[in-house]
Amino acid sequence: MARIVMKFGGTSVADLDRIRNVAQRVKREKEAGNEVAVVVSAMSGVTNQLVAWCSALSPLHDQREYDTVVATGEQVTTGLLAIALQTIGVPARSWQGWQVPISTDDAHGKARVEGIDGSALVARMREGEVPVVAGFQGVAPGNRIATLGRGGSDLSAVALAAALKADRCDIYTDVDGVYTTDPRIVPRARKLERIAYEEMLELASVGAKVLQTRSVELAMKERVRVQVLSSFEDKPGSLVVDEDEIVEKEVVSGIAYSRDEAKITLRQVPDRPGIAAAVFGALAQANVNVDMIVQNISADGSTDITFTVGRADLPRARDVLGREQERLGYASLLADPEVAKISVVGIGMRSHAGVANTMFRALAEKGINIQVISTSEIKVSVLVGAEYTELAVRALHTAYGLDAAEPAPEAAA
Amino acid sequence: MARIVMKFGGTSVADLDRIRNVAQRVKREKEAGNEVAVVVSAMSGVTNQLVAWCSALSPLHDQREYDTVVATGEQVTTGLLAIALQTIGVPARSWQGWQVPISTDDAHGKARVEGIDGSALVARMREGEVPVVAGFQGVAPGNRIATLGRGGSDLSAVALAAALKADRCDIYTDVDGVYTTDPRIVPRARKLERIAYEEMLELASVGAKVLQTRSVELAMKERVRVQVLSSFEDKPGSLVVDEDEIVEKEVVSGIAYSRDEAKITLRQVPDRPGIAAAVFGALAQANVNVDMIVQNISADGSTDITFTVGRADLPRARDVLGREQERLGYASLLADPEVAKISVVGIGMRSHAGVANTMFRALAEKGINIQVISTSEIKVSVLVGAEYTELAVRALHTAYGLDAAEPAPEAAA
Repeated sequence: MARIVMKFGGTSVADLDRIRNVAQRVKREKEAGNEVAVVVSAMSGVTNQLVAWCSALSPLHDQREYDTVVATGEQVTTGLLAIALQTIGVPARSWQGWQVPISTDDAHGKARVEGIDGSALVARMREGEVPVVAGFQGVAPGNRIATLGRGGSDLSAVALAAALKADRCDIYTDVDGVYTTDPRIVPRARKLERIAYEEMLELASVGAKVLQTRSVELAMKERVRVQVLSSFEDKPGSLVVDEDEIVEKEVVSGIAYSRDEAKITLRQVPDRPGIAAAVFGALAQANVNVDMIVQNISADGSTDITFTVGRADLPRARDVLGREQERLGYASLLADPEVAKISVVGIGMRSHAGVANTMFRALAEKGINIQVISTSEIKVSVLVGAEYTELAVRALHTAYGLDAAEPAPEAAA
Repeated sequence: MARIVMKFGGTSVADLDRIRNVAQRVKREKEAGNEVAVVVSAMSGVTNQLVAWCSALSPLHDQREYDTVVATGEQVTTGLLAIALQTIGVPARSWQGWQVPISTDDAHGKARVEGIDGSALVARMREGEVPVVAGFQGVAPGNRIATLGRGGSDLSAVALAAALKADRCDIYTDVDGVYTTDPRIVPRARKLERIAYEEMLELASVGAKVLQTRSVELAMKERVRVQVLSSFEDKPGSLVVDEDEIVEKEVVSGIAYSRDEAKITLRQVPDRPGIAAAVFGALAQANVNVDMIVQNISADGSTDITFTVGRADLPRARDVLGREQERLGYASLLADPEVAKISVVGIGMRSHAGVANTMFRALAEKGINIQVISTSEIKVSVLVGAEYTELAVRALHTAYGLDAAEPAPEAAA
């Protein structure tokens, strides 16, 4: 017997038929002899409507009231799923954040879970009841309803799994697992049976948007085994686990890409101590997130600094740096929004040399120029011209031996 | 300075524009120097959708889950109105039943308010904040969300007004007050400035559906002064108060009618002790509500019993009585769904003779046959053929001197 938290996202509970379908899945898991708790999102579309109402009344609305309004989406789903479960003979009841309770801080709209008292839920589960818990919400100090921010239902599920000491947290979604890369680009992408938390984090943050980053971080911290699987098909998904659970560590387990990048080069920056701090301090103050940074050696007392920012932040970054040009003392600013970041990720990299070199050779063979390189312990990222994205991803997927024997059926990573 | 509870129903908060309009009304009441708390319903249509979902999943759904789902309608309105108020400079915050708390019993779906701790709300009101409280809901034992049944927001408002010791409870609705009768039938119907609780109860239960009966009962018990007024116009409504507050007591203050009646006559019922108990016991067991009852004196050891039931209950009543015919021993059952109940209501009746006689004479003059008569301390009701409804109401309205000098602008009582 295992204890399992099952989480269903908005598309999985989009209408009554899908809610009935979810109930059947829960029933099967229960009939297999497991203790089950369920976390649900709002029916898809509902949250957007509620958010739109708040914004229409005031763009600068009180986040506490926003939370009160928006949290109703999940509340509706909990009640409906509890009814659907009872209807097919599964004892169930709904739980809102304040009922569990799931305590959060008071950062309304993007609150952090501070603690979950799982004792009432555990007692019910032992009696065979299925708690249906509202995702995305908790109760803040002062007894106000708080939400965890968009995508926060994954976080709720992982946090609940940790609190309940669950054996597994199954995240049901509209994809059937984590792939070596985007199957829309590489039809021979393979579904990964297992992937380490660290790999998942690198893949998620660079483009494989399956699991929200914060929930992977939490899973890693709390050692919650997470399974990503499809709510529309009946087959195992991908297990996100501690790397100790992965026996055959792949050198490279996935290729990620991101087109949401822009490159900025500051030419002839005076090469003196503190100049990098001045440049990136100004950007940080303007809330511009900087990703890759490259600075070459100096010539004639000046140097070039190149870095990437999110493409949406490019205008703001240009504006800030333009206003500060005199103080920073650089000669000119070059900006290029037509770039993509390609990353190879794998925990096996730590013990294998030559990983980066394989990447550079594969790209060179296709005539793809590398603009910026950045490496971490389990990742090598390069910046290339945006038009090379698909070509680069395919070349690397093949170069690292990731291609499946058969093309995958249509799926999205 | 007065303390006022303002309650807005579903049509008054049907969309964002109307919510903004409500916010302006609240602001005006506040700027007049009053302490204000607001009770809101769900945006119109929302509750029906939520109810339909529950029923579609299971006609016999768990009422606790139904309450969890349905209570979200009011929750959304509280948050949106709080935002709308803040936007125009009025400090406000939303309160759900469990936050106040409004404690109820565990009769989910039709719970009774058992107590309201108004201390937190009063403290906020003293600081100038407007509490926006979700109507229709409270928190039941075990920390579950409970709803008070359809129309329960009026009840919430009256109960809150009692708990806050408010000077007045203003019920904003889509009619502008309580009329002497239905202005759609009698264009010269007059809006009543004041009406006693007891009169309002009689008028409400026989057809003038302005205020939910349970909320009038509670207002009477707790001596809450209730004003019924329009949320779309800016003029005083009708005040429902203790009869001591009514100086000039009208003999008859209103004429009510109900077409939702059906008449049943049991012919030749054996005239022996306990027979009425047997007949009406059987109906009560089948949950059929019986209203007027007439039993004539016996002839030849048998009698006829006539009574009325709600028209929707007629098939059930026939069914029950048909199955029990042998035990009850009656000869035949006559049923007539084509009847209407006409009532004249007034607290002045207590001290005036001849009220019933005026009624009988006025109806006789129009050639309307009276089928059943029933009287109480402040009401005389008669059953007539349904096709005489309008004629009877108009004749009585004139006979009791209720006609206004001018026809009212279009309005519905």
